[in-house]
Amino acid sequence: MNSRIRVCLLGAGRAAKVHANSLVAHVPAGELVAVVDPEEEVLQTTADEFGIRGRFASLEEALEGAEFEAVVITSPTFTHKDLAVAAAQARKHILLEKPMALNLEECDAISAAVEKGGVILQLGFMRRFDPDFTSAAERIRAGEIGQPMMIKSLTHGPGLPPPWARDLRTSNGNIAEVNSHDWDCVRWLVGANYQRVYMQVANFKGEARGVDTENYYDNALVNIRFENGSLGSISSVCPCDYGYDARVEIVGEKGIMQIGELKGQAVVVCTNRDRGLVTPIYGTWPQRFEWGYIREMEHFITCIQTKTQPKVGGEDGRWAVAGVLAATKSFLEERPVYMQEVL
Amino acid sequence: MNSRIRVCLLGAGRAAKVHANSLVAHVPAGELVAVVDPEEEVLQTTADEFGIRGRFASLEEALEGAEFEAVVITSPTFTHKDLAVAAAQARKHILLEKPMALNLEECDAISAAVEKGGVILQLGFMRRFDPDFTSAAERIRAGEIGQPMMIKSLTHGPGLPPPWARDLRTSNGNIAEVNSHDWDCVRWLVGANYQRVYMQVANFKGEARGVDTENYYDNALVNIRFENGSLGSISSVCPCDYGYDARVEIVGEKGIMQIGELKGQAVVVCTNRDRGLVTPIYGTWPQRFEWGYIREMEHFITCIQTKTQPKVGGEDGRWAVAGVLAATKSFLEERPVYMQEVL
Amino acid sequence: MNSRIRVCLLGAGRAAKVHANSLVAHVPAGELVAVVDPEEEVLQTTADEFGIRGRFASLEEALEGAEFEAVVITSPTFTHKDLAVAAAQARKHILLEKPMALNLEECDAISAAVEKGGVILQLGFMRRFDPDFTSAAERIRAGEIGQPMMIKSLTHGPGLPPPWARDLRTSNGNIAEVNSHDWDCVRWLVGANYQRVYMQVANFKGEARGVDTENYYDNALVNIRFENGSLGSISSVCPCDYGYDARVEIVGEKGIMQIGELKGQAVVVCTNRDRGLVTPIYGTWPQRFEWGYIREMEHFITCIQTKTQPKVGGEDGRWAVAGVLAATKSFLEERPVYMQEVL
Amino acid sequence: MNSRIRVCLLGAGRAAKVHANSLVAHVPAGELVAVVDPEEEVLQTTADEFGIRGRFASLEEALEGAEFEAVVITSPTFTHKDLAVAAAQARKHILLEKPMALNLEECDAISAAVEKGGVILQLGFMRRFDPDFTSAAERIRAGEIGQPMMIKSLTHGPGLPPPWARDLRTSNGNIAEVNSHDWDCVRWLVGANYQRVYMQVANFKGEARGVDTENYYDNALVNIRFENGSLGSISSVCPCDYGYDARVEIVGEKGIMQIGELKGQAVVVCTNRDRGLVTPIYGTWPQRFEWGYIREMEHFITCIQTKTQPKVGGEDGRWAVAGVLAATKSFLEERPVYMQEVL
Repeated sequence: MNSRIRVCLLGAGRAAKVHANSLVAHVPAGELVAVVDPEEEVLQTTADEFGIRGRFASLEEALEGAEFEAVVITSPTFTHKDLAVAAAQARKHILLEKPMALNLEECDAISAAVEKGGVILQLGFMRRFDPDFTSAAERIRAGEIGQPMMIKSLTHGPGLPPPWARDLRTSNGNIAEVNSHDWDCVRWLVGANYQRVYMQVANFKGEARGVDTENYYDNALVNIRFENGSLGSISSVCPCDYGYDARVEIVGEKGIMQIGELKGQAVVVCTNRDRGLVTPIYGTWPQRFEWGYIREMEHFITCIQTKTQPKVGGEDGRWAVAGVLAATKSFLEERPVYMQEVL
Repeated sequence: MNSRIRVCLLGAGRAAKVHANSLVAHVPAGELVAVVDPEEEVLQTTADEFGIRGRFASLEEALEGAEFEAVVITSPTFTHKDLAVAAAQARKHILLEKPMALNLEECDAISAAVEKGGVILQLGFMRRFDPDFTSAAERIRAGEIGQPMMIKSLTHGPGLPPPWARDLRTSNGNIAEVNSHDWDCVRWLVGANYQRVYMQVANFKGEARGVDTENYYDNALVNIRFENGSLGSISSVCPCDYGYDARVEIVGEKGIMQIGELKGQAVVVCTNRDRGLVTPIYGTWPQRFEWGYIREMEHFITCIQTKTQPKVGGEDGRWAVAGVLAATKSFLEERPVYMQEVL
Repeated sequence: MNSRIRVCLLGAGRAAKVHANSLVAHVPAGELVAVVDPEEEVLQTTADEFGIRGRFASLEEALEGAEFEAVVITSPTFTHKDLAVAAAQARKHILLEKPMALNLEECDAISAAVEKGGVILQLGFMRRFDPDFTSAAERIRAGEIGQPMMIKSLTHGPGLPPPWARDLRTSNGNIAEVNSHDWDCVRWLVGANYQRVYMQVANFKGEARGVDTENYYDNALVNIRFENGSLGSISSVCPCDYGYDARVEIVGEKGIMQIGELKGQAVVVCTNRDRGLVTPIYGTWPQRFEWGYIREMEHFITCIQTKTQPKVGGEDGRWAVAGVLAATKSFLEERPVYMQEVL
Repeated sequence: MNSRIRVCLLGAGRAAKVHANSLVAHVPAGELVAVVDPEEEVLQTTADEFGIRGRFASLEEALEGAEFEAVVITSPTFTHKDLAVAAAQARKHILLEKPMALNLEECDAISAAVEKGGVILQLGFMRRFDPDFTSAAERIRAGEIGQPMMIKSLTHGPGLPPPWARDLRTSNGNIAEVNSHDWDCVRWLVGANYQRVYMQVANFKGEARGVDTENYYDNALVNIRFENGSLGSISSVCPCDYGYDARVEIVGEKGIMQIGELKGQAVVVCTNRDRGLVTPIYGTWPQRFEWGYIREMEHFITCIQTKTQPKVGGEDGRWAVAGVLAATKSFLEERPVYMQEVL
């Protein structure tokens, strides 16, 4: 067997814990040796929970104080570029959470550093590793539903994102933070790049929740035309309150395919004929994509061990960011935007 | 077009209203001209609701006071034999609600009178006309799942039946009143007669609802061996409170088939991620078998007009009664009972 | 009881037969006395099938040759205005199939004639009478999912429409012929008018099926902003080949609601573990909206008898046409179109 | 952290691989150090696949040649007693696959050795660790559906079991080998012991597959009365060919609960409106109970580390065997059997 790949988490928040759990409990080929977070309490809590020895306030300190081959970046989007570039320069392999970065210049800087550093860059699009989605993708590739003509992808998240994640200046808002997965998904499943993008937004809950950020929206509906003529939509509702919801529906020349469902557990109960049947819903993304996160980490570690390129990398991350930029421009300028305007 | 078949309802209760609705609103070839019920208030209410002119306290009076070609018998089981025999003697065609009668002697008396009268006898097994069940039956006959090896049929009803319907002496209890449909269904779908029957019962809610009838039960589980070696079960829960539930599951040599579902409407709602998805359930049997009742009546009227035998008749009704008798004997004597013991 | 309302069908094609069936078999308060169609063979076939005595080549002949109080217009869209106006002038009540007409001028002409004639005009939006949709609408009105924020409605039809129905000049194409129901549905369920509309289209199957009509499309995706700030989408795929598909999903401030489903029958079969579970799908719109068509006709006849306005009338039909015009303008000019540009 | 628990597999077949996978990939607190199998090829293949160093032909050799704290017994049922007793005597903790043993004497011998050895005995009833089943059990315990009145549990397996597993003398047949989980499940979920058992069996496929074992059956239907008056059924079909199927339905005084479903993946496809919607089914038990097997192993290792009794032990295994014995006696003697006859 290959020797275990030592990993340092950059960021100790919620997503970091999901990856820590994969490394500690389900990916024995990886070894979680260090974690970095500038917030001392978050750092210690996560480190304690997963028994991580190396605890650092910055990547620089971690590079000095611990030995590892790879990093997993889960810090806020506006920190991605600097951290990823620094990690690549230090020749650490990178699993980078979505969205890749704030803009294409940052994406390009990351990719350049990764290439120069000779390291692996895998984007955190875990749907590419979810059993439902991967099986669906294979069946589409095999021609089962024919050429995709129309794809609809949605991600609705239950709770209000943190301030930085709903401010266009620090994150590009929900269509980036919540829906990066959809941008990647539709491109992956249709097998073509976006050509033209149109987005309309709405703000229904902001005021009641004390959000006064400029251009804030909590609902967005994107209309996409792909280079191959296919049509697509992405819908974003966050906070939707009712649960975590991630589904895709594709109509191909030969048929229809639905991926995912609202139901979160195969337990149905009825105790009141006026209320009806009750079935659990997915409440959170770690719950919905439990296996996706494990398989994603396995893939990352295996790619490092076998020196192969991951199935989803910088180019995919960059396209998702480009879609976000075009969609944002579209809603601000109230018109469809061609990708060449932002690429 | 043939002239319309004039119908007289014998019984004006809940089942009568379902048939009245079919005749008045959905089966123009039938004409509802009279209704009989000894209870004046029930009689007038139903007659008013459906605009029925002829209103009588007894079949005898109706025979004198109105002209009609057919009767629909929905009165309590213990009245079936006398009413059906009298109707047949008066040369009226008969749609007879389940169960056919209290015992095989009564069944035989009905069949003899029907034959002598030269009239049509159709049993009220409306599942034979439900779109789900008829489609399923055709697919089984066509060999899609192979020879049925095991069949499970259930009917769970929401509310406590009336006193006569839960007393073995006036009705044979739930396994007859609630589950006659299952007895017919399993025989129809398996395509074989019962050979041996075993039943266990339980009484969970009787005391709380003030039922002290001897041998009362509200749960029953029947185990059947068919003459062709197939196995089957019937489950009965009434009052189940949670809704109206009628489903069948069959495993054949080549595959499995499920007929029916708990869901009563294609509207799914989630407003609380801790509670989950909520879907309406069927609340009542008229709601679940809306089309079954209409198609059943169409079939009856058509059979009369075309002088053809209905798809489900006295022999089917008699077998269902025989199954009930064997099952009742089984639970009272705590042993499996062969059909020849009761036939 | 009120005397029966005599009805004349204008058009004897597929939709006419659906309405004929409702009148003949399920709405006894209506009486189908005449049918009009310029195509002799279609006329005779439909008239024979439903036993209709009055058979005419034109409305004028029917007005002379038969007595009736109401018409049901199911002829091609480009004939709607002239027929509806003539019927209204002859003081016949009108059930008018969707889309109402080709443009707003025609809509206005119809409404003016209807008002002047003092007759009832009901639009053929049968989803307003479907049990799933009506129950959903009531629950939305009652506030169960809160204010609708985003609504997605789709209608995908199996087969290639006739030439006139896919040519913008005679019909406004699929977004009118296939998706009028969606236009009405989203407005009805959201409870607000469209403010701005954007549509992208695609043509995937036209060439293979020999369609060379200018501006032909077989896929369309509409993005709607409503006057109350809600967002919406309509998706159109026709021919989709895989079945008849009509579903709506709504996210409100308090939760999500799904109306309709792909499954067309509650029979599930598995005979091959590599293929999986198989469930029937709805194949056609008369099958999916069986009860909707019956209830729609009951409502029409009842409104005539009771002299009340139908739940869905000319104003609703006009809005659907306006949406179609804005969406068509949007895809031709490749930009979002405000409703005031077409109203 | 506690030191890792070293484990030796007794048996290297299919079930052994499932447990090996849990230990190697998902339960870092366990360490798979040895495997025992008398069949050299099976031994080497499994050991190679999971990189297990210690490879032995017998438990005795393993005890001499390797150090470990625990064993996982997955060998045929008729070997359970000797292996478990020997392991207990050597003071090894035991995870014992179902069924516990061939008869109650063997069960008692195992329990006595376990007690004397001061070791932990956990039975391999992985449904107790499946997320659906555990959640359901908690909700039942919390009273959500009230007192269970009727429970139906089924396990249908796709392929023909090996000769020893279908011969009553070496295994007690399908009702033990396939349905031990159901016996445990119904007792666990109802919260009461069996009082009386009745079973009917059928043999539909034996001849075609060359099985001439005496008393062989491939279909069985068990009727159970519990000590608290509840009713239950267990259904067994193996080989059922159509997939792996494990579901439970419970009617309680307050409502109904369904656990599990046929659907094996949330991907729905329709490419043919005459065929309908197609959804993957579970094909195998390791696929259906993927998390159940992982959580079961985590529990076993944690119990050893924390010196606590597992949630499911010898008493539970013994009751499942007792149910099997009563059911077998019932079908052979064609009568209901009270548990005291076999206990």
